[in-house]
Amino acid sequence: MQNKESHNLHQGKTSKKPGLKIIPLGGLEQIGMNITAFEYDDSIIVVDCGLAFPEDDMFGIDMVIPDVSYLEENIDKVKGFVITHGHEDHIGALPYVLQRINVPVYATRLTIGIIDNKLKEYELLDTTTRVVVQFGQTIELGQFKVEFIKTNHSIVDAAALAITSPVGVVVHTGDFKVDYTPVFGDAIDLQRFAELGKKGVLALMADSTNAERPGYTLSERTVGVTMDRIFAEHKDTRIIIATFASNVDRVQQIINSSYKSGRKVAVEGRSMVNIIETASELGYLNIPPNTLIDIDELKNYPDNQTTIITTGSQGESMAALTRMAEDTHRKVKIGHGDTVIFSSHPIPGNEKPITHVINLLLLKGADVIFQDVHVSGHPCQEELKLIYSLVQPKYAIPVHGEYRHLIAQAKIARELGIQKENIFILRSGNVLELDGENAEVVDSVATGGILVDGLGVGDVGNAVLRDRQHLAEDGIAIAAITIDSASAKLLAGPEITSRGFVYIKEADVLMNEAYVVAEEALMHCEANHVTSREKLRSAVKDALGDFFWKKTKRKPMILVVIMEI
Amino acid sequence: MQNKESHNLHQGKTSKKPGLKIIPLGGLEQIGMNITAFEYDDSIIVVDCGLAFPEDDMFGIDMVIPDVSYLEENIDKVKGFVITHGHEDHIGALPYVLQRINVPVYATRLTIGIIDNKLKEYELLDTTTRVVVQFGQTIELGQFKVEFIKTNHSIVDAAALAITSPVGVVVHTGDFKVDYTPVFGDAIDLQRFAELGKKGVLALMADSTNAERPGYTLSERTVGVTMDRIFAEHKDTRIIIATFASNVDRVQQIINSSYKSGRKVAVEGRSMVNIIETASELGYLNIPPNTLIDIDELKNYPDNQTTIITTGSQGESMAALTRMAEDTHRKVKIGHGDTVIFSSHPIPGNEKPITHVINLLLLKGADVIFQDVHVSGHPCQEELKLIYSLVQPKYAIPVHGEYRHLIAQAKIARELGIQKENIFILRSGNVLELDGENAEVVDSVATGGILVDGLGVGDVGNAVLRDRQHLAEDGIAIAAITIDSASAKLLAGPEITSRGFVYIKEADVLMNEAYVVAEEALMHCEANHVTSREKLRSAVKDALGDFFWKKTKRKPMILVVIMEI
Repeated sequence: MQNKESHNLHQGKTSKKPGLKIIPLGGLEQIGMNITAFEYDDSIIVVDCGLAFPEDDMFGIDMVIPDVSYLEENIDKVKGFVITHGHEDHIGALPYVLQRINVPVYATRLTIGIIDNKLKEYELLDTTTRVVVQFGQTIELGQFKVEFIKTNHSIVDAAALAITSPVGVVVHTGDFKVDYTPVFGDAIDLQRFAELGKKGVLALMADSTNAERPGYTLSERTVGVTMDRIFAEHKDTRIIIATFASNVDRVQQIINSSYKSGRKVAVEGRSMVNIIETASELGYLNIPPNTLIDIDELKNYPDNQTTIITTGSQGESMAALTRMAEDTHRKVKIGHGDTVIFSSHPIPGNEKPITHVINLLLLKGADVIFQDVHVSGHPCQEELKLIYSLVQPKYAIPVHGEYRHLIAQAKIARELGIQKENIFILRSGNVLELDGENAEVVDSVATGGILVDGLGVGDVGNAVLRDRQHLAEDGIAIAAITIDSASAKLLAGPEITSRGFVYIKEADVLMNEAYVVAEEALMHCEANHVTSREKLRSAVKDALGDFFWKKTKRKPMILVVIMEI
Repeated sequence: MQNKESHNLHQGKTSKKPGLKIIPLGGLEQIGMNITAFEYDDSIIVVDCGLAFPEDDMFGIDMVIPDVSYLEENIDKVKGFVITHGHEDHIGALPYVLQRINVPVYATRLTIGIIDNKLKEYELLDTTTRVVVQFGQTIELGQFKVEFIKTNHSIVDAAALAITSPVGVVVHTGDFKVDYTPVFGDAIDLQRFAELGKKGVLALMADSTNAERPGYTLSERTVGVTMDRIFAEHKDTRIIIATFASNVDRVQQIINSSYKSGRKVAVEGRSMVNIIETASELGYLNIPPNTLIDIDELKNYPDNQTTIITTGSQGESMAALTRMAEDTHRKVKIGHGDTVIFSSHPIPGNEKPITHVINLLLLKGADVIFQDVHVSGHPCQEELKLIYSLVQPKYAIPVHGEYRHLIAQAKIARELGIQKENIFILRSGNVLELDGENAEVVDSVATGGILVDGLGVGDVGNAVLRDRQHLAEDGIAIAAITIDSASAKLLAGPEITSRGFVYIKEADVLMNEAYVVAEEALMHCEANHVTSREKLRSAVKDALGDFFWKKTKRKPMILVVIMEI
């Protein structure tokens, strides 16, 4: 998981004044795990601290967090975390990283609210300084000034950052879209982007997620219009809507449509309940009185006067909607007379589990709506062009996305007149130094993903993952023998057993033959006076490996256990 | 994997004349594994015999083939396989099924050509009767007459079937689209569909794959136009195009565009080479002389005078394009000056591997084009409406697709006036009986997917798969002990080892503690005079399970091996 050996950076040469260093510590090879260090002289600030969800072949892994050893090595410089918004890919690693780098966390109000929930869970609330920042406010962190600028996104209170360093201003958009008619609060502060641009911006780091898509992302409000129409068309059924827990505006619109059509609203799924609680406490959700009911109260109302908002829009195996579809949900049974709405798009990779849930819901007789009840939270090409045109940066540094998305944004930047050599597609760990005149990648630092599995942080690495992949593919066969520790003569065994390889109850013949094969290998060793445990082990392993391949064209992992008496 | 106990059907009651039985043996719960039996009195014909690709959680499985025990039990009735076209999901299980049910195979010329390749590989060519059928030709199979009707699809020579039984005609579309301007051969024979409809069709079984999509599927020829444009825009680069091997028309258009722009064409990927060979031998591909070159000859031409057609459009891990992207292809190195075109759409579930390949290609400096260079081979909603309007069946039986797709076609059928009770969404194994007056599901037969893993057919079942899933998630810990066979006293061990659980080299402490835990469990047994091997095993297993969970929040599979002296 490590990209490079960890080492301290060479300090700026004495002959020239120090540059601004931009060091992405994650987020550029994949979606997620966004974290970027900005360093100038004795000061480091860190923008975001996200997790990544495991890749399909990372069996058993719960999440991936960034390697922050560079920050640990420079702990004295680190002034704080500046967080753009409350999504897991921007805040999810905080509980782990704060245990090593305990510096203040700065963010807008809802974002801090969501972070607080997380810190409470990890019992870090008392030891962490959190600071709520208003839009338009500027905080000072060592040699940096950071201004929070209002943007729009699929979670409210998302901020762009204007990071002022001694060599110039860097605008970091965070995740954003341009929504002229947001559901809650103001539209993105385009005037401020323009004002900064007019004064001169050194570099723009903008969200690449949708950079391959032409046109504009629609306003969140258009979903409300669709929702009203669907509610009007399904007056006679219960309505169950799955969406992203963190999309508070979406939840607001579902509540609005429900209220207008005289429905009570129940909320299901732990993350959904948590976020709705936090958002309404902080005033980001406006819930009319007597609208929200407990899931247990559903039975007191006719079906067609109720709405259930639920998690599970991505077909997650343990989410509430999935359990409803699989008939394992204790409180909600799906059937004829239910309309289930997916207010979401499939995140790439989730198509099959979502389709599985849709099929199950249809099989139960529900009506399922899964098209056009969602808009993205990221900018399409025209919105990126708008931001570039307002900010007019000298350098473009596309962020947030896989390589294909960064490349797509780079193309847009070139179309808008940014010179090719002023566009930087960075890799995680790259140290981009800007001195106001020039910019170049001068070094690289250790980065990588640290795997979290249960309580273990980093104890599962490539070796363990490779074993899991091997075990998944062909299972394991174990040969146990007991030998005399002096003579190495066989005292018991070989005892051969397997898991995940063949169905043992029906593989008697194969396993008996395997016994003979292993025994012959050992006899051969004995005849040749081989006593090295390593050689005995290899002899059995090779013999069994060849035998199983010949018989089954499979390659189970083979483990030889030698016990001595 | 088994749905129901296998049993013979009750024979038609003596009081009424026998009905036509339509028995899907697969293909209705998933994409793939299409196979349907038609039974009347003493005759059974089988339409298609496809495989399914394994689901994501079917670790190590190569393919899934249908359980045909119903056909085996009624072997005397089975007159032949009637194959609609040469895709794996319609022919892939033939080599396995023919070994049990050796009856003739009927199909159009290219389809037989592709089947022959497969039979050759399995050494079944000499023992299998294959019969080439022309479009418009009718074959007699027992009490059935089967007419092959020209359709269009993403492979040439696709046929619909008009199956005439004593109680009426069933039209089975196979996979199809309506292409008024196909690249090779004629457009779909709409007149014949109309003629059959005019005379009266009992039931229509039509392709549901795209039934959720409004509008029409574009003509294959539109891809050629796009291809020409892309070739014109990339005169200075080598062009590498990935597409489905079986899409002969697509390959033809790539060859056409290459020829027009003066490029030589090399073909890479085993399945691509095979299909192109078969298709050109049989006259389905028109390759201008001196156009095709061997992959080794590429070096003799400037890059911008070459095209490479390759497999790997779905990001398959072993395919040629993936190997090129990963720099493990022995003959083709990707770099600046390469244009890579994905002439394909992602099949649901393949989005992430495809994106992985695209990122790698871009990282190497290639230009990658992946949008709008493909059209589907299946009918959208307006095409389905056209076929229903021509055929005007009494009964609608949507086929080919997941439940969501079947439901979508059922909606269309209702819109077009088919009565609700005359639309049957069948499940695999359902026996739908039609007597000309009525239709109902009267019974069900054994169906299911049989897993193929290496040489094993059916030896990996749910138990083995569950073990593989468990092993993948948390690995395995093995405790081996040697005991005295008389007293059950511990002679050696416990020897504790693990794979895929924790990184052993860094887990000394954990494994030493585990040793103590297992030893204590055994001592406790000894103190209580427990000698039952099963109880010893449980004691160690439970103690280790609890210990590992407490320490790691993981649940490795725990295997206790007891050896006796």
